[in-house]
Amino acid sequence: MKRERNLQINAHGRLQHFLTIEGLPRELLIEILDRAEGFAGIGGRAVKKVPLLRGKTIVNLFFEPSTRTRTTFELAAKRLSADVLNLNIESSSAKKGETLLDTLRNLEAMHCDMFVVRHHLSGAAHFIARNVAPHISVINGGDGRHAHPTQAMLDAYTIRRHKRDFMRLKVAIVGDVLHSRVARSEIHALKTLGVPEVRVVGPRTLIPAGVEEMGVSVCHDIETGLKNVDVIVMLRLQTERMRGALLPSAAEYFRLYGLTPARLKLARSDAIVMHPGPINRGVEIDSQVADGGRSVILQQVSHGIAVRMAVMAMTAGSQAG
Amino acid sequence: MKRERNLQINAHGRLQHFLTIEGLPRELLIEILDRAEGFAGIGGRAVKKVPLLRGKTIVNLFFEPSTRTRTTFELAAKRLSADVLNLNIESSSAKKGETLLDTLRNLEAMHCDMFVVRHHLSGAAHFIARNVAPHISVINGGDGRHAHPTQAMLDAYTIRRHKRDFMRLKVAIVGDVLHSRVARSEIHALKTLGVPEVRVVGPRTLIPAGVEEMGVSVCHDIETGLKNVDVIVMLRLQTERMRGALLPSAAEYFRLYGLTPARLKLARSDAIVMHPGPINRGVEIDSQVADGGRSVILQQVSHGIAVRMAVMAMTAGSQAG
Amino acid sequence: MKRERNLQINAHGRLQHFLTIEGLPRELLIEILDRAEGFAGIGGRAVKKVPLLRGKTIVNLFFEPSTRTRTTFELAAKRLSADVLNLNIESSSAKKGETLLDTLRNLEAMHCDMFVVRHHLSGAAHFIARNVAPHISVINGGDGRHAHPTQAMLDAYTIRRHKRDFMRLKVAIVGDVLHSRVARSEIHALKTLGVPEVRVVGPRTLIPAGVEEMGVSVCHDIETGLKNVDVIVMLRLQTERMRGALLPSAAEYFRLYGLTPARLKLARSDAIVMHPGPINRGVEIDSQVADGGRSVILQQVSHGIAVRMAVMAMTAGSQAG
Repeated sequence: MKRERNLQINAHGRLQHFLTIEGLPRELLIEILDRAEGFAGIGGRAVKKVPLLRGKTIVNLFFEPSTRTRTTFELAAKRLSADVLNLNIESSSAKKGETLLDTLRNLEAMHCDMFVVRHHLSGAAHFIARNVAPHISVINGGDGRHAHPTQAMLDAYTIRRHKRDFMRLKVAIVGDVLHSRVARSEIHALKTLGVPEVRVVGPRTLIPAGVEEMGVSVCHDIETGLKNVDVIVMLRLQTERMRGALLPSAAEYFRLYGLTPARLKLARSDAIVMHPGPINRGVEIDSQVADGGRSVILQQVSHGIAVRMAVMAMTAGSQAG
Repeated sequence: MKRERNLQINAHGRLQHFLTIEGLPRELLIEILDRAEGFAGIGGRAVKKVPLLRGKTIVNLFFEPSTRTRTTFELAAKRLSADVLNLNIESSSAKKGETLLDTLRNLEAMHCDMFVVRHHLSGAAHFIARNVAPHISVINGGDGRHAHPTQAMLDAYTIRRHKRDFMRLKVAIVGDVLHSRVARSEIHALKTLGVPEVRVVGPRTLIPAGVEEMGVSVCHDIETGLKNVDVIVMLRLQTERMRGALLPSAAEYFRLYGLTPARLKLARSDAIVMHPGPINRGVEIDSQVADGGRSVILQQVSHGIAVRMAVMAMTAGSQAG
Repeated sequence: MKRERNLQINAHGRLQHFLTIEGLPRELLIEILDRAEGFAGIGGRAVKKVPLLRGKTIVNLFFEPSTRTRTTFELAAKRLSADVLNLNIESSSAKKGETLLDTLRNLEAMHCDMFVVRHHLSGAAHFIARNVAPHISVINGGDGRHAHPTQAMLDAYTIRRHKRDFMRLKVAIVGDVLHSRVARSEIHALKTLGVPEVRVVGPRTLIPAGVEEMGVSVCHDIETGLKNVDVIVMLRLQTERMRGALLPSAAEYFRLYGLTPARLKLARSDAIVMHPGPINRGVEIDSQVADGGRSVILQQVSHGIAVRMAVMAMTAGSQAG
């Protein structure tokens, strides 16, 4: 954990890479939230652009396709006035037999400044951060089942907007925790920010063994799990898991773990409902809830741009004295 | 029709969306042509850019691929200094089961300002315009067999450049009118702008029943159809229709309806020849005609950028008081 | 040769297109190197951008995919502040039966300023340059087995940085010379710049007949070929050639022609090692050599951006009086 912290924070004590929430100090997470606050207003302006990263080159280095994540990073970069290069590595030099390290060396030699990495293998963003030149920043846009730290921070930002004090909150994270990089990063963020009670809720087959060591409680019954919570984080169900032995049908999953208006009533009356999207209506969440007054799902998307601008600005500025 | 008009024109009486020519008043079409006139000079300048839409985000929302149309909108947006996001929806979240409305909600939450929509289904752009947030403008880049209004306006612009007065013109539209969104939009534009005589010319199988109700005359014989016209609009033949029962071979089509130098002589001596492109040489048009002195096909392409800049500038500015 | 020279150099005596090194005068190659020197510093600045081509539209017209080459031209163009359009022609109007000339006419009509052309057919960039409007510049980004002039110039730039005087150098070009557009352009550049001794080294099956007429010597034995050279240019082995009769296995190729530390010792003690990339480790080059102190392979990549900026700036400025 210490090593990761060193990897992300440079000799000036600044955030150079953003790979995982694990090991980052509370003050740094608060700094990200505060910086995002400053960027949140830009989306509503006539000119949605600040010149902060003008003349920087940001590379979307995507080893698995994701239009949504690529789009939010691309927009964040362009609103900071950076130049953006979209590279889909599946369809590029990898085919010609070039190693990943050689691809990195080449992009460095082209004087790129930042890599946003998306990869199907856990640890890929760390591997890349460990192997880039000192002037480059790496942002993890999701690696395998491991981490998705910008998603966790935009969730934290959304919670702070509505709930102010993390120290008094009860949060339920519901669904396929086992395969979710969002859930892992979320738990680290909430615990670091001081949330006293985080519950993970889902079927035995989808809750990782030993998750309690992360400081959360486990609940297999959704009715118990939602009782009196302030925040509900629904996870996306990867429908491809349906085919395996891990899950029954979508309808059965909804019956057991779907968030319905009735179940929402179990939470506190001012509870908010979150989801990282894209949502499966009628699988993990009822449309009435997704579109209802307690849902902050679309606010999460807006905040995602502001949080990614904050992380890009902080890491790009990490070199200055 | 009234409903469509309301949908496109907002409470300030401005053009908020540009979905179809149908129902738009003559003055508004003239305003588009006049605005385009102001942008037409930019293509010839050393710096082909104006800062009008700086800091705006324009999304090319393409549900069917079209490099040519996407390119012209992308260039128009960049020359207005907007940021452009190209989304090919086939290959994005649609695969993950996200509904179209959820995709729209997400793009709105990212503070996008304008959607250029291309879709294989008629009515798609209207559906999207009806369902977006009030600050967003939708431009129809072609939907099914329904409408392609920017193509119609660039044609009208090209005609005005050469012929000045719409009130005295005879125009022939030749080819596959049945499947052509270009033809439908074109007829609406020409009739609204006051063209007294529009003839549609083509085989019975490719002329829609009841087209006369749009104020045009029908002619199945090209020699009669071209007699004394001022403007000839050739339509592109979708060669995939050849396989069906609607059409004989390409050679047979050319023999019956291809625009040859001999047939061009039937039109007025100063008649212009237009085509939305890409042209099928030797199928709907002879190369001598396509490349000849009366062809304004490439001027149409240039005017397309200016007209799209005009429509983008007008719709983006529709919110101002 | 005279005709090509005329094609590249316009009536003002300036470089309008950059298609091949063949036929260009020494002074012009030196001018490219000197201009590149001025751009080389930009990669290290905080704001990696100059406004030289602001408001120009540069089209990457790629008829064969190449992420690496497209990326370097895209970065060069963006750092000159141009707008960039990426067109993959395989997947565009070509499918709709449009001819190449019609595609060019359309892009011209959209007021594009420069085409960077990549094509699998030799002569494609010349064909396009011969057929574009006078205001357009064409840069060859690699055509068939014919030429890759920006690669040759970045190699020359790299050599000049390390060796200063071309007049005293011995250079070995090693590998599949037969299929290499890089090798052809390289030989022309080095001979024009005054390099007295250029050796091509490779198996009989991969050395073109009559190559001596280009002013080089031929050597089938790598040990002899590397003796006392100042510069070693390793060529990439197209592994798809392995399947044919031209080559034995990759291991056998490495045994006979791979650049190992032992073979490197045969060259001068201050010899530099170059490779156009992407490298096949253990096929044409040993990792110890590729990553060693004499390798300048990554410097080549950096210089590639500066040289491409120089060529773009010179050709775009060729129209001015």
